[in-house]
Amino acid sequence: MSQQDAYARAGVDIAAGQRATEMMKAAVQATYTPEVLAGLGAFGGLFDAAQLKAMAGPVLVASTDGVGTKTKVAARLNRWDTIGQDLVNHCVNDILVQGARPLFFLDYVAASKLNPAQIASIVGGVAAACQAAGCALLGGETAEMPGVYEPGEIDLAGTIVGVVERDQLIDGSTIETGDVILGLPSTGLHTNGYSLARKMLDGLDWEAPHPELGGSIGEALLAVHRCYLEPVRRLLAAGVTVRGLAHITGGGVIDNLPRILPSGLGAAIQRGTWPEPPIFGLIQQQGDIPAAEMFHAFNMGLGMLVVVPPDAVAAAQAALGDDVFIVGQIDAGGDGVVVAG
Amino acid sequence: MSQQDAYARAGVDIAAGQRATEMMKAAVQATYTPEVLAGLGAFGGLFDAAQLKAMAGPVLVASTDGVGTKTKVAARLNRWDTIGQDLVNHCVNDILVQGARPLFFLDYVAASKLNPAQIASIVGGVAAACQAAGCALLGGETAEMPGVYEPGEIDLAGTIVGVVERDQLIDGSTIETGDVILGLPSTGLHTNGYSLARKMLDGLDWEAPHPELGGSIGEALLAVHRCYLEPVRRLLAAGVTVRGLAHITGGGVIDNLPRILPSGLGAAIQRGTWPEPPIFGLIQQQGDIPAAEMFHAFNMGLGMLVVVPPDAVAAAQAALGDDVFIVGQIDAGGDGVVVAG
Repeated sequence: MSQQDAYARAGVDIAAGQRATEMMKAAVQATYTPEVLAGLGAFGGLFDAAQLKAMAGPVLVASTDGVGTKTKVAARLNRWDTIGQDLVNHCVNDILVQGARPLFFLDYVAASKLNPAQIASIVGGVAAACQAAGCALLGGETAEMPGVYEPGEIDLAGTIVGVVERDQLIDGSTIETGDVILGLPSTGLHTNGYSLARKMLDGLDWEAPHPELGGSIGEALLAVHRCYLEPVRRLLAAGVTVRGLAHITGGGVIDNLPRILPSGLGAAIQRGTWPEPPIFGLIQQQGDIPAAEMFHAFNMGLGMLVVVPPDAVAAAQAALGDDVFIVGQIDAGGDGVVVAG
Repeated sequence: MSQQDAYARAGVDIAAGQRATEMMKAAVQATYTPEVLAGLGAFGGLFDAAQLKAMAGPVLVASTDGVGTKTKVAARLNRWDTIGQDLVNHCVNDILVQGARPLFFLDYVAASKLNPAQIASIVGGVAAACQAAGCALLGGETAEMPGVYEPGEIDLAGTIVGVVERDQLIDGSTIETGDVILGLPSTGLHTNGYSLARKMLDGLDWEAPHPELGGSIGEALLAVHRCYLEPVRRLLAAGVTVRGLAHITGGGVIDNLPRILPSGLGAAIQRGTWPEPPIFGLIQQQGDIPAAEMFHAFNMGLGMLVVVPPDAVAAAQAALGDDVFIVGQIDAGGDGVVVAG
């Protein structure tokens, strides 16, 4: 038997993987920055790091993440072009909060059976978001795992590597009582809380227009995780003193804001000071979920929090206009992070 | 309801993830090289890259890979301490073939339901192999994905980042006719060909001692993917001119050796010049698979090929002793890679 036959017997379609690879090639190459040394060897991806020699204290910042069960939303709607963008933007934000700019990205896609068009659509989304962030898609792996994944399901994870000057690391250590918490709006759930959200919304029609959402439930659930690279760059370019950045992911503001707060400090967030995407209200209503739990499971419209000294607020507002909201302040922290209102 | 209750309703056990995190912490911290900037911010992992400033032309080399359905072998045998080692060693080898030494690693583990002890065992294996390779385990992600993975199954992937001096990149470009192919022995299947192997061996007892294998089928299948960092370092330290390195993964010698050969060159491999682990004979016999297909699906005992000029062979043998075999030579390549005997 041929090799293809041998693998087909075992449920592995090598040719499908090769077709997907071809379909992705052009999108991937469009992400190549001048640092990518393409064609120099065929195993790992090569990235010319000469630029780090010109830095005073280069620190590499790396993060691996997945998109969670947002993949199941994509599967239910059979729409595969956005979750790759979710993945990249999530990872860009995760290193951005430490002040790092992205250098390169690698993705991992796996399924029980590879569908070349589907994989190409997913990786096309990864490549588009990489290109938008100036981040090279340096490599990746596509794995066919019969018997590991449920039929029709996929998983998608990725790793980003970025760099920051050591003396420009943002870590929250200078945050003090009275600092102002600015909120940058999210587009929806981003990549967190989908297991809970799907459970609450499961019995509803996801494709019909929904009166409260300005679109379908499916569209609201698939809204692309926003990349905060541009607004944060604009703040820094305007000379705003950014004392801390918190990417609001799993655990919501309740768990994520404390990760950057110096010991002993807390925060008071005032609900109603920023717009909450209506999908959160629908989930809460369907599941009869207390507000406190909502803020622990979802970003509730706050995708990124920026902590600045009070005298920097005006400059931040001048830099970002109506893309920023004053949502709270740092306090002595007896009660941790409290959401009022 | 509490947050735990809300997640439990949706099948996500947050507390299980937190317990696994605690159990892994000590093993992970043992991998920290002096470059790891721990405690400076809690989102991405930080790696001090000041050493790159002292290099003439630093090139970062990155690779993402998984362990394929070797995870299903681990599941059948309920043994979780080795596949993390497989993953790291696979990735170390993938960048080693370009001459790179590892800097740091990030892992991704996902399952339909997290079992803290199992995850801790897997990540413990990742950490042990990282420590052995002098590679910091800088970060990782553990994801619970109800409904995406089959019950009891897990997936494991990882990303490695290493560095090489640009003028010490190994890419095969200087390989010429008459060069000698050295083979470094594998421990078994390493991480490739498991879907086929499992199919062929499915009906046999994997736990009883097997007369041909010197152990059980399960033990032979789980043999840890070998890391070739030490032998390759020894070759380079002995001044051996290494013209090319090929990590033999999916596609066997037939697909992997050509990846480093200059256009127009081929290779003749002489079977019988190195020891073939007996598990391959058992798979071949059970599946009645032609030898040519075996060499296309498995490494057949050759985990790493090293291409050297003829006058470097004696030094290579002096450096590696009985850990290296002369297995073939580079030829004019009319027939690609041919395995004879």
